[in-house]
Amino acid sequence: MAGGAGTRFWPASRSDRPKQLLPLAGRSDEPLVAASVRRILPICPPERVVVVTARHLTDAMRAALPALPAENFLSEPIPRNTAPCIGWAAATVRRRDPEAIVMVLPSDHFIADEPAFCATLLRAAEASKSCSVATIGITPTRAETGYGYIERGDDTGQGFFAVRHFIEKPDFARAETFLSSGRHLWNSGMFFFRASEMTNLLRSHLPHLADGLERIDRAAALGNEPVELENVFPTLPAISIDHGVMEKAERVGVVEGSFGWSDVGSWQSSWELAAKDENGNAAPESAVLVEARGNLVCDLRDETKGRVIALVGVDDLAIVVTDDALLVIPRSRSQDVRKALDLLKSKTR
Amino acid sequence: MAGGAGTRFWPASRSDRPKQLLPLAGRSDEPLVAASVRRILPICPPERVVVVTARHLTDAMRAALPALPAENFLSEPIPRNTAPCIGWAAATVRRRDPEAIVMVLPSDHFIADEPAFCATLLRAAEASKSCSVATIGITPTRAETGYGYIERGDDTGQGFFAVRHFIEKPDFARAETFLSSGRHLWNSGMFFFRASEMTNLLRSHLPHLADGLERIDRAAALGNEPVELENVFPTLPAISIDHGVMEKAERVGVVEGSFGWSDVGSWQSSWELAAKDENGNAAPESAVLVEARGNLVCDLRDETKGRVIALVGVDDLAIVVTDDALLVIPRSRSQDVRKALDLLKSKTR
Repeated sequence: MAGGAGTRFWPASRSDRPKQLLPLAGRSDEPLVAASVRRILPICPPERVVVVTARHLTDAMRAALPALPAENFLSEPIPRNTAPCIGWAAATVRRRDPEAIVMVLPSDHFIADEPAFCATLLRAAEASKSCSVATIGITPTRAETGYGYIERGDDTGQGFFAVRHFIEKPDFARAETFLSSGRHLWNSGMFFFRASEMTNLLRSHLPHLADGLERIDRAAALGNEPVELENVFPTLPAISIDHGVMEKAERVGVVEGSFGWSDVGSWQSSWELAAKDENGNAAPESAVLVEARGNLVCDLRDETKGRVIALVGVDDLAIVVTDDALLVIPRSRSQDVRKALDLLKSKTR
Repeated sequence: MAGGAGTRFWPASRSDRPKQLLPLAGRSDEPLVAASVRRILPICPPERVVVVTARHLTDAMRAALPALPAENFLSEPIPRNTAPCIGWAAATVRRRDPEAIVMVLPSDHFIADEPAFCATLLRAAEASKSCSVATIGITPTRAETGYGYIERGDDTGQGFFAVRHFIEKPDFARAETFLSSGRHLWNSGMFFFRASEMTNLLRSHLPHLADGLERIDRAAALGNEPVELENVFPTLPAISIDHGVMEKAERVGVVEGSFGWSDVGSWQSSWELAAKDENGNAAPESAVLVEARGNLVCDLRDETKGRVIALVGVDDLAIVVTDDALLVIPRSRSQDVRKALDLLKSKTR
């Protein structure tokens, strides 16, 4: 899933360069989407990776993922949330192989322990053969209020748990309870199912969506997908797979995982995940840092050669430079990036 | 005098764009040198303004001062401090009119009360007829350690005082004494004399300089100044007019003035002098400022249209953007700009 827009990384993220196309974690030269594909290569060859993205991002995605076949990029005419995205991808895979196990993975997350991640993916894929849909729940490491949770139920004895509840982002007190319960896991937004099974699930829980996807699927079988996609996709209900399917389906399984996961939700978390110097600065080699500590410098200009960024005596700032914008904000206020964007819109309107 | 280099305004000031060519005070679209010429227009027409500058700055100076005749720009082959600069300019004026009164003014200062300034200039010019050289001493308004001082002596009864001492930058305790003495004035670096008198002063106090300037002057009278300038100017002693003449000359007069003067010595003082919004930000209209107070934003890029600078939740910073550099520093640490420049030099060496 690589269609997200997102404004939390303004001015780096733009409609034509969203978060997943940016190198926001770990390696400063690898966009998140490229890392997302690279780290599953041990268990999934490139020709089996299908990328669903927004139409206007398709060229950029192909450029970021040159090892993938061109026909593996599915371009949504307009964004309709995750249920249509996943349903369309599942149908596409099913036409190739109805028995295929589909792993639905976000393209804009960070994973610290990649071998542990791949091992967990394989367990979840295996689990999906014994339930309707499987998901991965991350062992929580702190009372995080920024994530949804999954409460697990009984151990099925088959390497996964039944899901008892999906739970929206909690307040801090509740998050603390979840952390100590031992039963609550972070909702990773990853889904595992047999391709043909998703058709059944959508038919049961989102019949209008299933109808639309069937029209697209029939057209695709006749080599006429683009036209029908244009007609039908915009009419599909914009609903998330969580609300539309996961919370309603029976026999949903969850595999617990622990592999240093982050959804890279803000400049703050980008700094946390980045390589840093001895003063806690995550900055390009070329930056001139004098008595500066804990800063994030993100330089996304097309041409940075011969250009200097100098910080003197400032701490804990996020400084983001693009060809057309500069943002200076304390890391701890990363969530207020939106305020700058709102003011900018009102000024330029 | 418009030949200064200066590094205190890095990255805005560069060898080819020194402080006097930058709009660092008051009006954001007027370079300091243009303001310096504009504010004396009520008492001195453009054809009588002579600009001494560095050779590589001459084109930029002509562009910044389009009202001045091209021949009024004197280009020094290399910088030799203020005594050769002033001596050469004085000789040039003297060839036009030996009786002319020369006002030597810096090109990179700020004046708040321009009518009061012009009135003081006229008093100093008048005073120069009754002494060897006159200068202006600024009534101090604080115990400033960044300026030199002039201790005034007797009132001559002719609208000016005798100068008792020129005093180097004091420490704070001494500056406090000066502030309360009533006799100590800030050294403004402005000088007033009859053109022919400067020749006499240099002959008495800096004979080697006087010899060299005479060679250049003779060549100029024969229309051959450029060649002799090239030969002679680099051999002139690099000495300031203060040390070379003012501190040695007899009958030096000082006129006291008070017109909101600043030598614009740092980003801090640039901020102090700039127009500010209700939150104390001195920034371009287009800047996006969210809960930001007391910041200076100086954007000197060639092309700023469509480019956004956004500050969220930061206070009292100086943020300077040029086409090839970005500086972020607390205003209060403006004097540490040099540290960034030193580190940059060591990194790029």
